[in-house]
Amino acid sequence: MFQIDHFGFLEDGTFKQRYLVADKHWHKPGGPILFYTGNEGDITWFCNNTGFMWEIAEELGAMLVFAEHRYYGESLPFGPDSYSDSKHLNYLTSEQALADFAVLIQDMKRTLPGAQHSPVIAIGGSYGGMLSAWFRMKYPNIVVGALAASAPIWQFPGMVPCGDFYKIVTQDFAKSGYNCDTNIRKSWKAIENVSSTASGLQWLSDEFSLCSPLKNMNEVTGFKNWLQETWVNLAMVDYPYEANFLQPLPPWPIQAVCKHLGLDSTVSDHQLLHGVAQAAKVYYNYTGSSSCLNTSQTATGSLGLLGWYYQACTEMVMPMCTDGVQDMFEPEEWNFQAFSDGCNFMFGVRPRADWAGTVYGGKDIASHSNIIFSNGGLDPWSAGGVTYNISSSLVSIVIPDGAHHLDLRYSNAHDPASVRAARELEVKYFRDWIKQAARAVSA
Amino acid sequence: MFQIDHFGFLEDGTFKQRYLVADKHWHKPGGPILFYTGNEGDITWFCNNTGFMWEIAEELGAMLVFAEHRYYGESLPFGPDSYSDSKHLNYLTSEQALADFAVLIQDMKRTLPGAQHSPVIAIGGSYGGMLSAWFRMKYPNIVVGALAASAPIWQFPGMVPCGDFYKIVTQDFAKSGYNCDTNIRKSWKAIENVSSTASGLQWLSDEFSLCSPLKNMNEVTGFKNWLQETWVNLAMVDYPYEANFLQPLPPWPIQAVCKHLGLDSTVSDHQLLHGVAQAAKVYYNYTGSSSCLNTSQTATGSLGLLGWYYQACTEMVMPMCTDGVQDMFEPEEWNFQAFSDGCNFMFGVRPRADWAGTVYGGKDIASHSNIIFSNGGLDPWSAGGVTYNISSSLVSIVIPDGAHHLDLRYSNAHDPASVRAARELEVKYFRDWIKQAARAVSA
Repeated sequence: MFQIDHFGFLEDGTFKQRYLVADKHWHKPGGPILFYTGNEGDITWFCNNTGFMWEIAEELGAMLVFAEHRYYGESLPFGPDSYSDSKHLNYLTSEQALADFAVLIQDMKRTLPGAQHSPVIAIGGSYGGMLSAWFRMKYPNIVVGALAASAPIWQFPGMVPCGDFYKIVTQDFAKSGYNCDTNIRKSWKAIENVSSTASGLQWLSDEFSLCSPLKNMNEVTGFKNWLQETWVNLAMVDYPYEANFLQPLPPWPIQAVCKHLGLDSTVSDHQLLHGVAQAAKVYYNYTGSSSCLNTSQTATGSLGLLGWYYQACTEMVMPMCTDGVQDMFEPEEWNFQAFSDGCNFMFGVRPRADWAGTVYGGKDIASHSNIIFSNGGLDPWSAGGVTYNISSSLVSIVIPDGAHHLDLRYSNAHDPASVRAARELEVKYFRDWIKQAARAVSA
Repeated sequence: MFQIDHFGFLEDGTFKQRYLVADKHWHKPGGPILFYTGNEGDITWFCNNTGFMWEIAEELGAMLVFAEHRYYGESLPFGPDSYSDSKHLNYLTSEQALADFAVLIQDMKRTLPGAQHSPVIAIGGSYGGMLSAWFRMKYPNIVVGALAASAPIWQFPGMVPCGDFYKIVTQDFAKSGYNCDTNIRKSWKAIENVSSTASGLQWLSDEFSLCSPLKNMNEVTGFKNWLQETWVNLAMVDYPYEANFLQPLPPWPIQAVCKHLGLDSTVSDHQLLHGVAQAAKVYYNYTGSSSCLNTSQTATGSLGLLGWYYQACTEMVMPMCTDGVQDMFEPEEWNFQAFSDGCNFMFGVRPRADWAGTVYGGKDIASHSNIIFSNGGLDPWSAGGVTYNISSSLVSIVIPDGAHHLDLRYSNAHDPASVRAARELEVKYFRDWIKQAARAVSA
């Protein structure tokens, strides 16, 4: 049972936070605890997609704990009312989530025989990786170190150029097939052209096998956003083997996508969009089981999108922009005011652009210690990640052939050498931290 | 203008925080900023009682900033309603105060010409010293180091013995005059004896020149608490020269007090209490201007007592106990449940005993850096302070002849050598931190 509000005393309610424990290989007393700092979704899904922890538990004699983030999965502070309005959503913040993790670990250490002196290592990917880095920064008394995999802790206002994210997406497509990025860049105009007539809209809907056919030009904007998100998701999950993270996909899915986009500059709009449709179906219908494509969803339902929108609309303000030149998307500037207005309309709250930088240190984090920032060279989120060593104990591991937190996944025969080396190095750091902690306890 | 709630987005109101700036000696651009992290009271009072900062401003080319803590002085988030109920008090927490300080400094660096690269050093005493230590721990991106003077960051459940505080008070009296602690220890029973009759109550009230005479035995408990607090306050302000911090007092006021308590064991209850009354008047009427003694107040009105009670009733849970053997007070155990019930009765909130330790690290703070913990050997608050070096950059300075943050006061011809040395060492560390920061900026 955890406080709904760690930072105020008026709301004294508690809620049940879900966490999963695997102690089969735990050496007690004192064996380490690998603690997954859950992100915006169902913790069982993250648990199943973090094979790395399962694979190293035995050699480290470690207990595994996967803690669900409040407001996601089954960890709903107000049950079914948790998302009912901004009053109930008020306790959905990263600070509250970190406090949940801290209190959970303190409770385990107090109550679980053999855990009192167990060093705890935070592990997380993506937003969960940001949380594990911040957890070590804010609660070094609770965790001896953190692996922040694909954690864009610098994707905040004023820290990195807003266009880098989409540049990396574009590079992934550019190097995965002839003319692949060029044809996606051309496709937006082709969609506009074809959509200008009712028959064109119908053709486009048929070609993409849309579950809900496009009815007018207004819906075309949503259709383009959906396509754009599709390409982004592909860049995130461009893994070297068949996998099912956001969707079931073939090995190197962008190469598979680009096979349909290797068209010459002479093709017609219809020919081009036929290729785009085939490409999209690689993502949405690799298994062949989809009878139609649903533009209201781009990834697994295990992610809590509404909660994440709220977080983006409050603390997690991540500027993104495109120029259509260095990237393959339609030009769009970052417009904070418009974003804020949208947030106010949707949730009745306004984002605080500078808060994350103030509270989590922005680029001034050199005084912290024992954090590994791992990033994949293919992953667009590496644009906001830490990709150089800040100090001898704030280290970066770059996996050139890696997409979004590839290192956290189960090992695979098709893993590139870079991710094998990354995982080895990560375990080496874990051992170092565990040793440091043992020395501190015995001192 | 600052957010009333830094940790939630439903309450989007702002308030005016007061802060005082002195930039006469500031070397701009880039000269350091000495930032006083205001505690539970009017900031002008702290400003006037922190002469150390004024005296070193010139040699460091520093700007001075004194920031008032929310809910104290004029920094009231809801104006006159701020204390009206637990709903309005909900934003009175140390975390919110630290966030105010962080946002204030970030704003100054953005808007004040020449301040962008100024290293900021946090300085505070007592609760303000706890805040400056925690400020460096939680926001090392904002402050390069902290001087935490007489900051009892370990006066929390499970960290230090609850009786140490009163033991130190007792030692101060024991060494300041013959039989001084012994007679105070005896006085509690004498008060009980004398108070058992109406004429005795009247005599006691007259002897102590009480503004409101004691009417019954129930009031005697309050009277004894007031006396106990008087002795504690004397221990805090046992300065070597005439001073006016909590009250106007002579040099070494405990010695002056003990002059009235050097009585032999043969004295009667009335003779003993006559001495105690004379002793109390050293504290309450050194200037001779008080016509009567007011048992509802023990110190300056510049402290915000109600706010501090609320903080003690929420986060700042500081166990205290007495045994009457190793200290000179009536035995009283620490009773968390009774304390919690009192808090619930008074404010409608309950304290969270473990939270401060979880959020601020308790005794596991070794991974932080650049904090000086200074403590006076005479100061009872040193019982909960850091009085040994934790690492090469988490250092302790003990001032054996010092009372409560003597080092922060203006220098004085009667200063003991230990406090002179302490101040010198503190400035040396400040210079080191400033140099470190300059290297980081130019790197």
